Amino acid sequence: MASTFGQLFRITTWGESHGGGVGVVVDGCPPRLRLTEADIQPDLDRRRPGQSKIVSPRRESDTVQILSGTFGGRTLGTPICLWVKNEDARPEAYAEMKTKFRPSHADFTYFAKYGVRNWQGGGRASARETVGRVAAGAIAKKILRESHGVEVLACVKQVQRLIARVNPDRVKLKDIESNIVRCPDQAAAEKMIRLIEKMRRTGDTVGGIVEGIARGVPAGWGEPVFDKLEADLAKAMLSLPASKAFEIGSGFSGITLTGREHNDPFRAKQGQVFTTTNFSGGIQGGISNGQTIFFRVAFKPVATVMHEQDTVDVQFHNTTLKGRGRHDPCVLPRAVPMVEAMTALVLVDHAFRHKAQCG
Amino acid sequence: MASTFGQLFRITTWGESHGGGVGVVVDGCPPRLRLTEADIQPDLDRRRPGQSKIVSPRRESDTVQILSGTFGGRTLGTPICLWVKNEDARPEAYAEMKTKFRPSHADFTYFAKYGVRNWQGGGRASARETVGRVAAGAIAKKILRESHGVEVLACVKQVQRLIARVNPDRVKLKDIESNIVRCPDQAAAEKMIRLIEKMRRTGDTVGGIVEGIARGVPAGWGEPVFDKLEADLAKAMLSLPASKAFEIGSGFSGITLTGREHNDPFRAKQGQVFTTTNFSGGIQGGISNGQTIFFRVAFKPVATVMHEQDTVDVQFHNTTLKGRGRHDPCVLPRAVPMVEAMTALVLVDHAFRHKAQCG
Amino acid sequence: MASTFGQLFRITTWGESHGGGVGVVVDGCPPRLRLTEADIQPDLDRRRPGQSKIVSPRRESDTVQILSGTFGGRTLGTPICLWVKNEDARPEAYAEMKTKFRPSHADFTYFAKYGVRNWQGGGRASARETVGRVAAGAIAKKILRESHGVEVLACVKQVQRLIARVNPDRVKLKDIESNIVRCPDQAAAEKMIRLIEKMRRTGDTVGGIVEGIARGVPAGWGEPVFDKLEADLAKAMLSLPASKAFEIGSGFSGITLTGREHNDPFRAKQGQVFTTTNFSGGIQGGISNGQTIFFRVAFKPVATVMHEQDTVDVQFHNTTLKGRGRHDPCVLPRAVPMVEAMTALVLVDHAFRHKAQCG
Amino acid sequence: MASTFGQLFRITTWGESHGGGVGVVVDGCPPRLRLTEADIQPDLDRRRPGQSKIVSPRRESDTVQILSGTFGGRTLGTPICLWVKNEDARPEAYAEMKTKFRPSHADFTYFAKYGVRNWQGGGRASARETVGRVAAGAIAKKILRESHGVEVLACVKQVQRLIARVNPDRVKLKDIESNIVRCPDQAAAEKMIRLIEKMRRTGDTVGGIVEGIARGVPAGWGEPVFDKLEADLAKAMLSLPASKAFEIGSGFSGITLTGREHNDPFRAKQGQVFTTTNFSGGIQGGISNGQTIFFRVAFKPVATVMHEQDTVDVQFHNTTLKGRGRHDPCVLPRAVPMVEAMTALVLVDHAFRHKAQCG
Repeated sequence: MASTFGQLFRITTWGESHGGGVGVVVDGCPPRLRLTEADIQPDLDRRRPGQSKIVSPRRESDTVQILSGTFGGRTLGTPICLWVKNEDARPEAYAEMKTKFRPSHADFTYFAKYGVRNWQGGGRASARETVGRVAAGAIAKKILRESHGVEVLACVKQVQRLIARVNPDRVKLKDIESNIVRCPDQAAAEKMIRLIEKMRRTGDTVGGIVEGIARGVPAGWGEPVFDKLEADLAKAMLSLPASKAFEIGSGFSGITLTGREHNDPFRAKQGQVFTTTNFSGGIQGGISNGQTIFFRVAFKPVATVMHEQDTVDVQFHNTTLKGRGRHDPCVLPRAVPMVEAMTALVLVDHAFRHKAQCG
Repeated sequence: MASTFGQLFRITTWGESHGGGVGVVVDGCPPRLRLTEADIQPDLDRRRPGQSKIVSPRRESDTVQILSGTFGGRTLGTPICLWVKNEDARPEAYAEMKTKFRPSHADFTYFAKYGVRNWQGGGRASARETVGRVAAGAIAKKILRESHGVEVLACVKQVQRLIARVNPDRVKLKDIESNIVRCPDQAAAEKMIRLIEKMRRTGDTVGGIVEGIARGVPAGWGEPVFDKLEADLAKAMLSLPASKAFEIGSGFSGITLTGREHNDPFRAKQGQVFTTTNFSGGIQGGISNGQTIFFRVAFKPVATVMHEQDTVDVQFHNTTLKGRGRHDPCVLPRAVPMVEAMTALVLVDHAFRHKAQCG
Repeated sequence: MASTFGQLFRITTWGESHGGGVGVVVDGCPPRLRLTEADIQPDLDRRRPGQSKIVSPRRESDTVQILSGTFGGRTLGTPICLWVKNEDARPEAYAEMKTKFRPSHADFTYFAKYGVRNWQGGGRASARETVGRVAAGAIAKKILRESHGVEVLACVKQVQRLIARVNPDRVKLKDIESNIVRCPDQAAAEKMIRLIEKMRRTGDTVGGIVEGIARGVPAGWGEPVFDKLEADLAKAMLSLPASKAFEIGSGFSGITLTGREHNDPFRAKQGQVFTTTNFSGGIQGGISNGQTIFFRVAFKPVATVMHEQDTVDVQFHNTTLKGRGRHDPCVLPRAVPMVEAMTALVLVDHAFRHKAQCG
Repeated sequence: MASTFGQLFRITTWGESHGGGVGVVVDGCPPRLRLTEADIQPDLDRRRPGQSKIVSPRRESDTVQILSGTFGGRTLGTPICLWVKNEDARPEAYAEMKTKFRPSHADFTYFAKYGVRNWQGGGRASARETVGRVAAGAIAKKILRESHGVEVLACVKQVQRLIARVNPDRVKLKDIESNIVRCPDQAAAEKMIRLIEKMRRTGDTVGGIVEGIARGVPAGWGEPVFDKLEADLAKAMLSLPASKAFEIGSGFSGITLTGREHNDPFRAKQGQVFTTTNFSGGIQGGISNGQTIFFRVAFKPVATVMHEQDTVDVQFHNTTLKGRGRHDPCVLPRAVPMVEAMTALVLVDHAFRHKAQCG
């Protein structure tokens, strides 16, 4: 269904941006994994609004509570329910949305589909829904790290036309986390931050690209045909709010090369096979080949702007709407932990699927 | 699992490029739909190798047989098994692959995963697997057309650096089918054909972009959160052999705009809501908004080239390999019906899901 | 996965008998259904321990909270998370279970599977897990009643050797609810209550049979082959704690008849087809035929008895164990709402599946 | 969907009793398993009509063909498509069914559901659909035997009122296969055969009970909550044509015991835990406990009898119908391999699920 992701490490998120809270049920987690809220909270803090001057100022502590599935600090193998209460609801800020659809938000399409919507916020279309994903992703990352030696990273690669240099084979978490935009190229990061601040001041918004990286994935994860590793990554990324595009390895730019140029030659050294280039992005025929997996995800500029824009009301009459109060000039810094989480969820699911059939 | 796609209109493909044949089981098709082989064969003919001088010359008639699920020319509501025999197997052409992994093919990753592979061809990684998808897609397109008034199209948008002009709102099937490269911009098409022919002559290959289009989709199809319409489309497209990237609406280029510029203003006319721009590509928050859905898929240059390339053998020793005999200089003309099929499969599945919950 | 049930009306339960609470996420509920806690609480009260002198005396108010999925008293079409806090945990009552496996409980098998268990109660094997099922079932029953005119009932048919007369076509909810054992045959009910009270006094337990009934199901729900309506009902019932058997219609006793005797003749009256007998139990070939659906589920005697019994400890040494404190002499009165809930969940799922494919 | 069974070892059957044939796609089979048609044919021969004087005389060789998924006599890890052609179609024998619904068959319910049916036989409701299950089950049994040391058996336990003695811990395949009714109690078998022959002569039919057995299942397979091992077995069995009931271990008769009597005491010997009785039937809390798994399935008398019976026609007018030509007096001997197959499919699926999460 709409709210469940994964086959063997399966998460079901629930909750609206306004209501009792948001959360996730994680089913299929191996037993005996050490797990407390402290394993999850740091990633939620990286996803949290209000963490810096360049992101949404909504005030939420986003404190996670484990409601089930652990005992004595270890997982039981049974469903783990994680819950984060909503705190900064402020429904009054949304009064105008009761009667008007925000352009390029999901207000209209939810209404068209369901004939009802929680107009006190974006409902399930809100970035707030990703709390559950990031929380579950923290567990997935822990499993990948501890049981498989796999490191999952993401970073901001581009903001509007500002492009960072990132080497997927070498980039380090600490360099990514060393600035508030989460871009490891410090020179680019400074320019990005300035651009985003300008957007905040002018009431406008800006988009960009997040690069996702997985290092240490052994050859053999993924499935032929429909559940190719890159297909599941693409779905995972396009399921994130505001994402518009996905490319793996050479991606769109690979089409400017011929086959001779684009093929990744295999070489062997001490019984290990590797490729001397990595246009494939670490996946061939849907299955990991042991090289670094890397891909890019485009996020559109946030739709809420502090300017009057044409729209329609719920009676389908023409009107205008202007964002008021707080706005989020750029989703990218907070999208970084979301991309990490979804990457980890895809990988751990495929790790288990591989073990089930070929282990 | 790997070989099943869809939730309610569900297909399971089977078969290797070399063996008893390839096919598909379609489960969840509505009853009483008129259906004979004649509804399916035309799309298989568009997918077929050997259809023109610019595609793979493998000789297969790809004649489809309905093995189950119909009676008296109508569907029974039970699983429809479609089968296409393999004819032009020529295992001798693959003798060298027995001991060597072709670069940027799935030979190595299949071996790494399964410890065994059918070296007489690409196995499940072969484009031949898409026979089942295209056959099932023909049924999905028929349902969309007859029950929902939805038209699904695809065309070649770019070959290497040659870019065609395509208007997703107006492009017609007959213009797409009027040339062998399936590009509706006739001037661009001619250049594309010349480029591909050159590649064929030089034993090299070239990639490009297919644009997928769906017109007439009502507002309300798709799901919030994980099974967003664009997420399922992204997965569907990245599951096609040789695809490397997906973007919907403004895609990667949308990030150069600010939020003010990128938002699609709503307008209403005679009780109908529409947007005056379509950067969203017809989907907002995972749900169709009634505008034309359009997206682009990048296909890398075909990996088999007629030139010696570095690789390793099955004992993990360095060696070289050179493609011999026939080669496919460009997958794009045949990718067009594949993109159509996958688009139709995603849409019909979401149409049924929408009906089940909100109908 | 283990904790998810249903395809289109899909529930995921979570929570242990001891921990933060128990709950359920309901995905796929239609939008705009009126729904508040008051629609759910009555069935939880019927499932609650401590409701009468013949059931488990554990003290829990089992107050349900809707955490998501509704707005203004109506469903949004998005996941509904329901939560019931654990109140009467008393881990000290379970101290002995830390080191010993209770006979015919799931203590040993959970340990064998997971290598860890929450010994402060039965974990997920506890009847407490059914809180989520009953809560979700209340929603399913409401949909069936309001949108399809289907009535779902269950009642106690047999306690040990005491057999009640029940007419599935006519039995009424108020007659079932008129006594604490939930048996509509008042004479039998009195004897059953006396027997259960005796068991309580002697520290022993007793099992029996619950009959499940669905009236008003139209012909056509259910699927051929694997997801036959009776197959899904059988799975649903055998998934309830302590259940050991399922039979539909004539069930085991039908095998004493010959085909001539057992066949249900069709008759027609004013364009309506019906059968003059109902050995089929309302389902033929996996699909409802419009007659009353009825089936029986056997529940074993509760495993916790107040007598010393042989068992092993967690070091796999022989020992003995004696239940202490409170015990539940008979699960049947509380199993009635569980059977109703699971029946309703199966039916509403099939109603939606039918609508999706054939609607 | 209706036609797919299993999560990780997943089968999809297709085909009607009349049409191009019947078959199955097996997805999730481990790679490198030795597999040829010779591994599958023997079980199909045990399922085949015409194998003895007491079963359906329909003449079909039921020769299986592997269309995909193997190479050089070993599985590739990709979908295995198995196909059996229909040979003895004889649509003329079904002419009367074109206009009349057979009592207690699925003719009416299929028509009510789909508005169309293949009246030349039972379509998907025919026992012929089980060809695919038995073929897939042969693969599952091979995996269980070779990789897990698990033996799956089934035998006829009861025909009408004739009850056989069967010891689930000791019964041997050769004793089961030593007579045409597949009952290991030779004295009972003779009486059963005589009864079935009498039914054949008198144009009537008889039902009974098949016992399913799995020995050597390690403790730990199965899932808590919904996908309990017994729940999946119950579903599997109730999905077989003509089955009406399922009970595991003590089943319905267990309710005559009190908890003290019914509990299975644990004992340990040389570090091995076992139970001294097995009322649980080898499963506790949904998870195997290492003891023999055994259960019983009731099959109703076959609905086709050679006597005139009341029914309705497709215009919903009252009429009568009399079976003509060949009839199947008892499904039990052929149900034995079906029960084995479904048991094996459930077990291998749970073996893989266990490995994926806890392996």
